[in-house]
Amino acid sequence: MTATLLALYKRPVGGDEALRTFWQRYRDEHMPLIEKLPGLRGTKIWNVAQHFAGEDLIAVTHIEFDDKNALDAAMASDEMKAAGRNLREVAPGLLTLVALEESWS
Amino acid sequence: MTATLLALYKRPVGGDEALRTFWQRYRDEHMPLIEKLPGLRGTKIWNVAQHFAGEDLIAVTHIEFDDKNALDAAMASDEMKAAGRNLREVAPGLLTLVALEESWS
Repeated sequence: MTATLLALYKRPVGGDEALRTFWQRYRDEHMPLIEKLPGLRGTKIWNVAQHFAGEDLIAVTHIEFDDKNALDAAMASDEMKAAGRNLREVAPGLLTLVALEESWS
Repeated sequence: MTATLLALYKRPVGGDEALRTFWQRYRDEHMPLIEKLPGLRGTKIWNVAQHFAGEDLIAVTHIEFDDKNALDAAMASDEMKAAGRNLREVAPGLLTLVALEESWS
């Protein structure tokens, strides 16, 4: 069964300019680092089109691996450390990161 | 293009018993209300297996519609109002709800 990392990003402080900078650096710097993760199966990036309740999120990314072992290995890899260092510059304090498993449905 | 609602749930206060109660009511009460939404294409429920950063989430649900018009109609429907009322009992203050659109990748 595939294993998925879900990355959620809150809105940066600084209005439209901060948002444009986030997306530019996320696309040009961060995702190329994510694409280097060992065992990566694929990524999918979503833009938040509307906000209805709770946290003011702006972006959601799925990072998929073949299975939980591959996800664990990727989390412990040097490539993930590099991606994490980059993200602390690109989106300091804005990230929620969890691993998902399919539930009953 | 399909349109997706993403529902994220934070951990309820009250330890393992509160967590069990959340999942039971979510499965037995809330999702049957969601399944009645007009224009619904499908749902996918994920359990949070590991937490690495940010909000302490426990559950993630994708609710998919044929397109943005179908999503908007569902959000305005009586069925969604009923689901919202139920959710305020099942998970008060724990929900983040956003609509997603596919980004560049």
